[in-house]
Amino acid sequence: MPMHRFPDHLLKGHANFMAGRYAREKDRIRDLASEGQKPSTMIIACCDSRAAPEMIFDAGPGELFVLRNVANLVPTYQPDAGQHGTSAAIEFAVKALGIANIVVMGHGRCGGIKAALDAKFSPLDEGDFIGKWMSMLGDLPEQLGQNTLLTDGERQRAMERISIRNSIRNLRTFPYVAELEAAGNLQVHGAWFDISTGELWVMDSDSGDFVRPEI
Amino acid sequence: MPMHRFPDHLLKGHANFMAGRYAREKDRIRDLASEGQKPSTMIIACCDSRAAPEMIFDAGPGELFVLRNVANLVPTYQPDAGQHGTSAAIEFAVKALGIANIVVMGHGRCGGIKAALDAKFSPLDEGDFIGKWMSMLGDLPEQLGQNTLLTDGERQRAMERISIRNSIRNLRTFPYVAELEAAGNLQVHGAWFDISTGELWVMDSDSGDFVRPEI
Amino acid sequence: MPMHRFPDHLLKGHANFMAGRYAREKDRIRDLASEGQKPSTMIIACCDSRAAPEMIFDAGPGELFVLRNVANLVPTYQPDAGQHGTSAAIEFAVKALGIANIVVMGHGRCGGIKAALDAKFSPLDEGDFIGKWMSMLGDLPEQLGQNTLLTDGERQRAMERISIRNSIRNLRTFPYVAELEAAGNLQVHGAWFDISTGELWVMDSDSGDFVRPEI
Amino acid sequence: MPMHRFPDHLLKGHANFMAGRYAREKDRIRDLASEGQKPSTMIIACCDSRAAPEMIFDAGPGELFVLRNVANLVPTYQPDAGQHGTSAAIEFAVKALGIANIVVMGHGRCGGIKAALDAKFSPLDEGDFIGKWMSMLGDLPEQLGQNTLLTDGERQRAMERISIRNSIRNLRTFPYVAELEAAGNLQVHGAWFDISTGELWVMDSDSGDFVRPEI
Repeated sequence: MPMHRFPDHLLKGHANFMAGRYAREKDRIRDLASEGQKPSTMIIACCDSRAAPEMIFDAGPGELFVLRNVANLVPTYQPDAGQHGTSAAIEFAVKALGIANIVVMGHGRCGGIKAALDAKFSPLDEGDFIGKWMSMLGDLPEQLGQNTLLTDGERQRAMERISIRNSIRNLRTFPYVAELEAAGNLQVHGAWFDISTGELWVMDSDSGDFVRPEI
Repeated sequence: MPMHRFPDHLLKGHANFMAGRYAREKDRIRDLASEGQKPSTMIIACCDSRAAPEMIFDAGPGELFVLRNVANLVPTYQPDAGQHGTSAAIEFAVKALGIANIVVMGHGRCGGIKAALDAKFSPLDEGDFIGKWMSMLGDLPEQLGQNTLLTDGERQRAMERISIRNSIRNLRTFPYVAELEAAGNLQVHGAWFDISTGELWVMDSDSGDFVRPEI
Repeated sequence: MPMHRFPDHLLKGHANFMAGRYAREKDRIRDLASEGQKPSTMIIACCDSRAAPEMIFDAGPGELFVLRNVANLVPTYQPDAGQHGTSAAIEFAVKALGIANIVVMGHGRCGGIKAALDAKFSPLDEGDFIGKWMSMLGDLPEQLGQNTLLTDGERQRAMERISIRNSIRNLRTFPYVAELEAAGNLQVHGAWFDISTGELWVMDSDSGDFVRPEI
Repeated sequence: MPMHRFPDHLLKGHANFMAGRYAREKDRIRDLASEGQKPSTMIIACCDSRAAPEMIFDAGPGELFVLRNVANLVPTYQPDAGQHGTSAAIEFAVKALGIANIVVMGHGRCGGIKAALDAKFSPLDEGDFIGKWMSMLGDLPEQLGQNTLLTDGERQRAMERISIRNSIRNLRTFPYVAELEAAGNLQVHGAWFDISTGELWVMDSDSGDFVRPEI
């Protein structure tokens, strides 16, 4: 383990945080620490550096409980011996924190979705973790076909949205999610963020279509 | 699936984003979209609503590739048939994005760590996902003992830091992480964020101790 | 007994004292001599050359009644035939001087605590005084475990704080300490001094945690 | 255990230390922390609030290893099962730190010496710790007699100096002290501080007389 210094750009960024937001919101931040977090909303988002939920929703400390994995996937409920990180976060949010909203948020030009659509996951090896992780989508990528009149961009965006609906479907296989939703105590939402225009598209809970909301 | 509206507080937050950061950084954000992300740093952080990496490091779009799971755990390298979300994100960051730094960042008053230290994961059921997920720590919580003169707060903080070192140890079982680190092309860091004081403590790469850096 | 001169550095230091503080505070110092000491606070501290209570608290003559032994230990109340120096000082402070506060103050990188954590008290012999003195901690060092993911520095700091709480617990076995404290006429405090950063951490009287006070 | 705040006068004193001495000597203090203490001198002094060795010798951090008990007493070498705090400190100073000088420093108007001279240790109870602790002086107080032409002040001062010589005699019963002193590698000194005039009287190593040194 070679010795090294912590990255300077992170130290400088943290100094900015202390001088800026922390200084301005110190009282609220300290209260959140002593009283515990009570976020009303969980966001299931992607690791992509261009799609941070706190940026997109201009959210401050204590507001969003955020799970981020590659391509914002949710597996089905599998209460076996495995160590399921995404399921653990959902369970914690719903059962320990009493979250009122879960938002599955995808975004444009998602590298994980692109990998799922590519025949080969280059530059990643076969039998890799990304390949297995994206296989959670099953044969959905194949179903989209290789229609030559659907552009690559359109296939990508279609898959990004299909994937969100797939995650939401899987989310509802968790018994407590289904029960709380049926009782009106939990809402499940879909959202898609355009990393270029900054637009947020939200999923119509009835039709499953993605639309730009009017405020 | 009951009909419902997308949460208003998220829509308002997004409107703030569009009028604020997006308006100011539009050119850079569009370039990032068209040219692709090239973050130099991956952060492996917790889902906690009080510990968003982008806030702590005052980071903008394109800077941080962020994985967030409960208690910022990293499993050992297990190239089996399982769908390993955390491993997939690490693989994507290292092999597809060519990340130069990986930071495992824990934080104070972590609910996942608290669950690992508690005999029973109340209010979660036995055999739950959180229990299995936190079992990645093995017998480390037991090793800390139940010393009655160690306060609950001290046991918690010690475990938070042990857990970071454990994640870093596991990270190094990924062959490409070990190889790139040995070649000097990748650095692995530990950090711990104090959600009350806002302080960042960074891990000394030699001793493993956490210290407040001087800039 | 060979002849020798009193160390020059001490004589020069004393000359500085006479020309400096004594010259400035002569009246007060003489009054203290003729009227007797009436310190409100007793400090139980370590012999370490880097942790003088008068320096840490910027205290002048007459302010602090100071006991210093290795690792600021307090034994339990043992009214036997033994010559208990620490107990004698506590008794004198409480019963003859009517002290209002007792502070047990530990510090970082304490050599006595290090000896208690080491299997062997090298370079000291077995059966030595340090070994027996530090045995006042009982099996507390063992209880901390030999967790390989707890760094040496962290074990040391944890033990330093455990030891302070142990001393405070023992202090309360003195009947007059317990009685006066219950009546609200005596307060018992814990403190830990960071010999590197200069910070003082004080013990929360409720949780036993050490925190940096806000003034 | 009632809740309470750490004494304000100590917090203010510490803030003064941080803004003053610590700010000025930060580099040296940090070096002392990382490199370890290497004091050349041990002072065995009294707990009296008017006789702090660091004040009297204008000494900074790292200079003096300081043991303070009531009346600066040193017991004889008793390698039994007891927990001897003073002996532990002497052992640590000589064997672990390699101290070059030990100074036994008494002072005027010492409450412990006064207690030893009084028939009854009022306001302390019989069978108390102070009585047993001062009994280390054996029949020395009685030997001084109750000569009516020796004033109380003279008896007190004589006893203070007798006690220093007694402590030095006992110190030499420690085999390593005697050996190192014979080899010229350790010097043992006596000193007496006048808490009213600020004068330091040092013991002539040959005659045992206390004289004011010329610099």
